[in-house]
Amino acid sequence: MKIDLNPMLKPKSVAIVGASRNPDKVGNVILKNYIDAGYSGKLYPINPNADSVLGLKAYKSVLDVEGRIDVAVIAVPAEIVPKVLTECGKAKVKSAVVVSGGFAEVGEIALQEEIVRIARKYHMPMLGPNCLGVMDTRSRTDTLFLPTYKISRPQVGYVSFMSQSGAVGSTVLDVIAGEGFGLSKFISYGNAADLDEVDLLKYLMNDSETKVIVMYIEGIKRGKEFVELARKVTKKKPVIVLKAGRTSAGSIAAHSHTAALAGDYAVQEAIFKQFGFSVAEDLSELVYFAKIFASETEPRGNRIAVVTNGGGAGVLTADAIASSRHMKLAQFSARTRRLLGSKMPKLVNIANPLDLAGDAGDKRYEDAITAISEDENTDMIAIIVLFQTPGADSTVSAGIVHLKETVDKPIVVMSTGVGYTQAQKVQLESGGVPVYDSPASLVSSLEALLEYADFLKRQA
Amino acid sequence: MKIDLNPMLKPKSVAIVGASRNPDKVGNVILKNYIDAGYSGKLYPINPNADSVLGLKAYKSVLDVEGRIDVAVIAVPAEIVPKVLTECGKAKVKSAVVVSGGFAEVGEIALQEEIVRIARKYHMPMLGPNCLGVMDTRSRTDTLFLPTYKISRPQVGYVSFMSQSGAVGSTVLDVIAGEGFGLSKFISYGNAADLDEVDLLKYLMNDSETKVIVMYIEGIKRGKEFVELARKVTKKKPVIVLKAGRTSAGSIAAHSHTAALAGDYAVQEAIFKQFGFSVAEDLSELVYFAKIFASETEPRGNRIAVVTNGGGAGVLTADAIASSRHMKLAQFSARTRRLLGSKMPKLVNIANPLDLAGDAGDKRYEDAITAISEDENTDMIAIIVLFQTPGADSTVSAGIVHLKETVDKPIVVMSTGVGYTQAQKVQLESGGVPVYDSPASLVSSLEALLEYADFLKRQA
Repeated sequence: MKIDLNPMLKPKSVAIVGASRNPDKVGNVILKNYIDAGYSGKLYPINPNADSVLGLKAYKSVLDVEGRIDVAVIAVPAEIVPKVLTECGKAKVKSAVVVSGGFAEVGEIALQEEIVRIARKYHMPMLGPNCLGVMDTRSRTDTLFLPTYKISRPQVGYVSFMSQSGAVGSTVLDVIAGEGFGLSKFISYGNAADLDEVDLLKYLMNDSETKVIVMYIEGIKRGKEFVELARKVTKKKPVIVLKAGRTSAGSIAAHSHTAALAGDYAVQEAIFKQFGFSVAEDLSELVYFAKIFASETEPRGNRIAVVTNGGGAGVLTADAIASSRHMKLAQFSARTRRLLGSKMPKLVNIANPLDLAGDAGDKRYEDAITAISEDENTDMIAIIVLFQTPGADSTVSAGIVHLKETVDKPIVVMSTGVGYTQAQKVQLESGGVPVYDSPASLVSSLEALLEYADFLKRQA
Repeated sequence: MKIDLNPMLKPKSVAIVGASRNPDKVGNVILKNYIDAGYSGKLYPINPNADSVLGLKAYKSVLDVEGRIDVAVIAVPAEIVPKVLTECGKAKVKSAVVVSGGFAEVGEIALQEEIVRIARKYHMPMLGPNCLGVMDTRSRTDTLFLPTYKISRPQVGYVSFMSQSGAVGSTVLDVIAGEGFGLSKFISYGNAADLDEVDLLKYLMNDSETKVIVMYIEGIKRGKEFVELARKVTKKKPVIVLKAGRTSAGSIAAHSHTAALAGDYAVQEAIFKQFGFSVAEDLSELVYFAKIFASETEPRGNRIAVVTNGGGAGVLTADAIASSRHMKLAQFSARTRRLLGSKMPKLVNIANPLDLAGDAGDKRYEDAITAISEDENTDMIAIIVLFQTPGADSTVSAGIVHLKETVDKPIVVMSTGVGYTQAQKVQLESGGVPVYDSPASLVSSLEALLEYADFLKRQA
């Protein structure tokens, strides 16, 4: 049966069950976040003990709501969830997000099985339990019970992120928002009692607002269906996966976290790689890879040019490229060398890495990148901007954003620092330019991009 | 001959040669930074065309200054440097920092040799040319010609950093300042024409204000002396090294950057490791390792406890530990398990990683860490705090800083995010607790600490 997740992610009406008047309670935080986010659909606080919550009329049960409910967000103690879900079913609520914990992850397996039975009886796709729920930057649905002062919400974009862990998901969201690149959907699915990896991956595969899929998973419930889907999904869009529970120590921890059975990682990794998934080794790589794929430029080859205003950073990047599996430094054509020679000051040595020197400003960067972008021997351009130097300022960032719009080769930036540099990084990321803070992260991300491009070529 | 670098790093008087009235000029920025930093020694702007600069009386030459000059910071065009240095020699200036570029790094080898001859003739230790010079957080000498709005200055601490590259150095300084851990000295030595790796490393080895040495080097000029020194230095204090020009591509780039001859990295790395240096593979590892050594707690063994408020992050950390070369998850003693059982809420599963759950606040963290710190089977404690969760706030950070002061085992924190989280990270770092933003960086840093502890044991 086809599962329709649109009521959950694009709801026109949301019931929040357990919408307390107490601002410390999860249900209150969720309702408040909907109001603060300017959600334009209908909101129904469900609370048997209040007439109104946060200025909205409250209902004793979803059964008392007259309009249709696209999604019920359930934040009540575990033992009450079956009753609430049954009422949702009777009220023909279209989908349910159970944020409450206290199910299989603490051994309450029967209780979890009971809620799955109820959800399926009423054909009500159910997310969770033991999860943060969903966020969609376009529909502005946002069930995260985390205060916005603690976690920034990302801007609208095309990366969708499904995370078995709510907390891991929320830290990644925070980083995505802080760095300034955009998000389409976030789905925290916890115990995966009903909706699981396969359902969610299938939905994101077919979602036109999703161009890059990022997955944090602890276990895979339906191996056979997952493999069938894996075969298809990467032909449509890139998928980045971080699998926790890769070791036996991690696998034991994963089981007590979301009751996941981690399985044999060697087998899983082989499957991921065979089907062109980009496998992140660490939390930070998840974000690094997401950025590079979100920038949506496919490399035609493995030859990279490095432009820098700091010699040492150029050397380190050359080292990282030379040590990489797939990449090599480009050899500029005679024409490019002539062009650079005529445009650069005498002190600039025409080589790759091209060291523009510490006084380089927007003009020198623009001249260099323009010349190199037309070089037939260059497939990708890594631009190092150390904003601590006297010459580099926001005009350099603006220039790179502008060039990124016209140059049909991957352009990435490396920039390390805080304060002033951080502000520049956000400017670049908001303009669609991925920024890395070390040569190693820049190179491993470009490698992931190259590997995916190679995978697609092999499929063609 | 023993080289005295105190006049350069602890100067009572500084002459800035090339102290222009133009705020865009390097000499002006350097002078302004001294004034802004509240440097308490004497400042002599040297400028043949001005009577005063930035409100200070200016001199036409160092020869016109009546008082003694501890260090001359020289920021004039390369071709004038010999004349200026000769005047410094005649005026008995005690040391010189040549920030000007335009020497061996652009092929002007004869000019570089000339200034070395002059410096040595007058027994004037010379740093540079082609460098940023020095910063000492205690004496407040600071020759960096980088505006303070672009690069934050770190607080007083015990990490000293010698960097062949000025720009790499400045980005690392910026990150150190942003993260909130302290610095003793920064020495950017550029072309190493006179003072080189050996001189600087020897100085830092004997400097009581330096407890951790961090080196970014592109070449090693005096291999034999360096090896002799390497044999001694790590017995006194930890040394973290990032060597650029590890590959032939990087090595070529290094030569055009600081005229360094990178040499055979395999041989160098073998020497570094034999003598207990902590070898950073990347710019980011330089900072990661510096933090862990700066926290000054030696591990007695390789068994680590993980405390977390996010299950997924605990799983990822367990994976990273289980995949590491030296570390393993601690098995809590029966006593510790009992103690934790009596202190933790029923939902907390007593295991390692210990998942305190998303509502954990300062009390639960404190109870858990206190119990674990007394566990005889635990040598190190990794604390994961995802500040995006409802329970975690600055009282958790304060509690960890307090425990760090009393617990005699390495304590490190993992925390990922921006905004609120970033503020908490600074609070923790300022309190001497190293903070990492991914399981991988936390684990690789603890590995470096363990390897150094093993090295010291083998020496004993």
